[in-house]
Amino acid sequence: MGQVQSRLTISPTPTKLAWMMHLRMLTTMHGLCEVRQCSKRWKNLCPQTKNLQKCQMSSAGSSEMLQVTVDDKSGIATMTMCRPPVNSLNLEFLTQINIALEKLENSKDCSGLIITSKIPKIFCAGLDIMEMYQPNVDRLQEFWRTLQEMYIRLYGSQLITAAAINGASPAGGCLMAMSCDYRVMAPGYKIGLNETQLGIVAPFWFQDLIINTMGFRQSEMALQLGTLFTSEEALNLGMVDKIVPQEQVMETAIQEIHKWKKIPGFARQITKSALRKPSIDKLHSKREEDIANFRDFITKDSIQKTLGMYIESLKKKAK
Amino acid sequence: MGQVQSRLTISPTPTKLAWMMHLRMLTTMHGLCEVRQCSKRWKNLCPQTKNLQKCQMSSAGSSEMLQVTVDDKSGIATMTMCRPPVNSLNLEFLTQINIALEKLENSKDCSGLIITSKIPKIFCAGLDIMEMYQPNVDRLQEFWRTLQEMYIRLYGSQLITAAAINGASPAGGCLMAMSCDYRVMAPGYKIGLNETQLGIVAPFWFQDLIINTMGFRQSEMALQLGTLFTSEEALNLGMVDKIVPQEQVMETAIQEIHKWKKIPGFARQITKSALRKPSIDKLHSKREEDIANFRDFITKDSIQKTLGMYIESLKKKAK
Amino acid sequence: MGQVQSRLTISPTPTKLAWMMHLRMLTTMHGLCEVRQCSKRWKNLCPQTKNLQKCQMSSAGSSEMLQVTVDDKSGIATMTMCRPPVNSLNLEFLTQINIALEKLENSKDCSGLIITSKIPKIFCAGLDIMEMYQPNVDRLQEFWRTLQEMYIRLYGSQLITAAAINGASPAGGCLMAMSCDYRVMAPGYKIGLNETQLGIVAPFWFQDLIINTMGFRQSEMALQLGTLFTSEEALNLGMVDKIVPQEQVMETAIQEIHKWKKIPGFARQITKSALRKPSIDKLHSKREEDIANFRDFITKDSIQKTLGMYIESLKKKAK
Repeated sequence: MGQVQSRLTISPTPTKLAWMMHLRMLTTMHGLCEVRQCSKRWKNLCPQTKNLQKCQMSSAGSSEMLQVTVDDKSGIATMTMCRPPVNSLNLEFLTQINIALEKLENSKDCSGLIITSKIPKIFCAGLDIMEMYQPNVDRLQEFWRTLQEMYIRLYGSQLITAAAINGASPAGGCLMAMSCDYRVMAPGYKIGLNETQLGIVAPFWFQDLIINTMGFRQSEMALQLGTLFTSEEALNLGMVDKIVPQEQVMETAIQEIHKWKKIPGFARQITKSALRKPSIDKLHSKREEDIANFRDFITKDSIQKTLGMYIESLKKKAK
Repeated sequence: MGQVQSRLTISPTPTKLAWMMHLRMLTTMHGLCEVRQCSKRWKNLCPQTKNLQKCQMSSAGSSEMLQVTVDDKSGIATMTMCRPPVNSLNLEFLTQINIALEKLENSKDCSGLIITSKIPKIFCAGLDIMEMYQPNVDRLQEFWRTLQEMYIRLYGSQLITAAAINGASPAGGCLMAMSCDYRVMAPGYKIGLNETQLGIVAPFWFQDLIINTMGFRQSEMALQLGTLFTSEEALNLGMVDKIVPQEQVMETAIQEIHKWKKIPGFARQITKSALRKPSIDKLHSKREEDIANFRDFITKDSIQKTLGMYIESLKKKAK
Repeated sequence: MGQVQSRLTISPTPTKLAWMMHLRMLTTMHGLCEVRQCSKRWKNLCPQTKNLQKCQMSSAGSSEMLQVTVDDKSGIATMTMCRPPVNSLNLEFLTQINIALEKLENSKDCSGLIITSKIPKIFCAGLDIMEMYQPNVDRLQEFWRTLQEMYIRLYGSQLITAAAINGASPAGGCLMAMSCDYRVMAPGYKIGLNETQLGIVAPFWFQDLIINTMGFRQSEMALQLGTLFTSEEALNLGMVDKIVPQEQVMETAIQEIHKWKKIPGFARQITKSALRKPSIDKLHSKREEDIANFRDFITKDSIQKTLGMYIESLKKKAK
């Protein structure tokens, strides 16, 4: 943990706060474990964090949260998330992702898309909780609408989409991965919709997505328990499609897309649309209701109080 | 079979009649096997019956069909069925179960519920056929409504529910088990929706429940064939979640509930409701129609004639 | 490949054209593989074709595409497809199948049905592409309606139905097999809905059928990729229920139907209807729309042009 933790102790940046809050949120909102346990549990999700700096250096600038490249020869785009510390999804990051998805969707040169992460040991840690604490209600609603938008674009994409899951992928990170056509994962990480562990609830379209992916019964248990599965468990349940060593994740995703590219695109796209349209239509028809539900839930005094206490305790520690 | 069978031969009580009818109903309504085979098949379901007496003695009185206790420390309730000979579900027994479910649901001290049986080798043999022969139509309808009520309460319960399946669990017994959140089963028993083997039909909500539990295709075969699965087969199909030795069934159910209790209750309950609501709503919307279907089917001359012949033959044997 | 191929080279009959077109259609409509590869791929589906003659001889006449027998003792009918070269489904063949299904359905002496093939190494190669090239629109629509009819009759049959899959079973052949109650397959063949590989799209009721058979996620991948599974893969995915050596396929199907016959027929039929009715009703309600979709898709210039080029190239070769 050395390098980054040290830096953070010296200079308590917003980044550090978000990071620490994630540690706490992921483990303590339900009030059942001690801080020491929480850290362990998070380490389990993300055992190695010293390379965060690397990501920040390699990106062109601090604003470059999302690196998008398209390989001209293959037509395969790669969308690399690089929003330290844990690729958490806030309004701006989701907006960038949506803009990129729209551009790629409309590009004639692009037929496939791989989503991956530049943050070591983290694919995507899910929603940024800073969006949820003492929120401006307009922004809160816009945040949720933008998340819906990301799912609608990705799950309904005409592109061949693959998640190259090279790190932990809880909650919104799992949603993103399950919205793709194929999932390749490195061993030793955790993935799942762990919302209930944080005292919150995965909305109906997260639920529909996991049910589509691994069936009703296992989804029902996983959603109630907020289970984070190991890569191997996720493979057995069908939540991911293949496990390969970390260094082969990208190459395997590329090879998989090449396999799908052999299928006439028009027929494949019509087939994909027909299968996924009912789920997407359902969200479209309940979109405003879903936003209102999220807003009303998050702005509850009890939820805000819990959030506030943790943020306060973290600020004190940071001083 | 010694002790109880002897007692029954001396004194043909209603209990004996119900027991013998179950033996026959479970095996011969389709007219394809001889009595000798039937007995064997039932013995397969329930190989040891000599301890029935024990259950009757240990209960406070003959009316105490259902023993409900709540552990103050853990908040886990245990509902123990003790209606000899086979925990068959009649109107009064179902009513007692529903009253207990309502009380526990409303109790602030109770967060989990384990359903189990005091009858050796039997979890619950399903519906009491005495409710179906020459029925008073009002009572018949009330009987079915009460069964619907049991399913609605149990499948939709806010409590963490586990079935500690310590014996055979055909038909309605399987329904009861599948309505829980988790199923622990002892090895060597049978479980399944075997209605078609008796010439009757599992209604749509039994069907929805088994499909939710183990998927469409395996459910379709199981429902058409009325398959009774061994504990091991049921585990492989996902109909039960764990097999442990008989003496560990209760303790395992308790430990499982403790695991679920670590999840914030509010989030878990909203998640559970969202997932199970469509199935429950469907029954709500078709409840009267379903009652009428059952009434019209059971009161068919052909069904009543079959029932009557067997009851008559049993009475003659009993003399 | 010797005998038949030789005969075909000497005398280019319509049969040969259909056969060669199938070879090409199955593999080259998407324009991604060379003729040499195509032949190999088809050989993989159908490695042995020299016994085609045998089928033609053993049938009573060239018009006897469908041989139907009923075993008086068991009440089990066998419907044997014998339309060389590959049992492809054209309007007349489908009509014969539907007439047979209707007769058997109404026969009091018949309780079970086995569908199998007399063509060595081929169960059924799916739709006859000659129905789709430069079609008379009225006939094209009638063709599709007759295919719908076949599915509705078979998937909704009151009979106990088993597919004895003794050869390759792509596309419409897979549909036919999945419409039965049970599937026994010989090892070493391929089965699947490979429509997208041909640049066409399996309609919604094909999709519903495969989802009912093997769940959403695996169906979604199989449909997008047009995967043809080996017998063994199909067993693991639940697409078929049992693999036995070629010479035991029929006998195993018979034994399976005997097992199902032990269940009271009335109860089994009501159960089957309840489970399959939603899928069948969905097709009933969208039947005309589905016919129009098929007609509009197939009569597209781009599709017709592709068809035409291949037929032309085959004709030239045949000269």
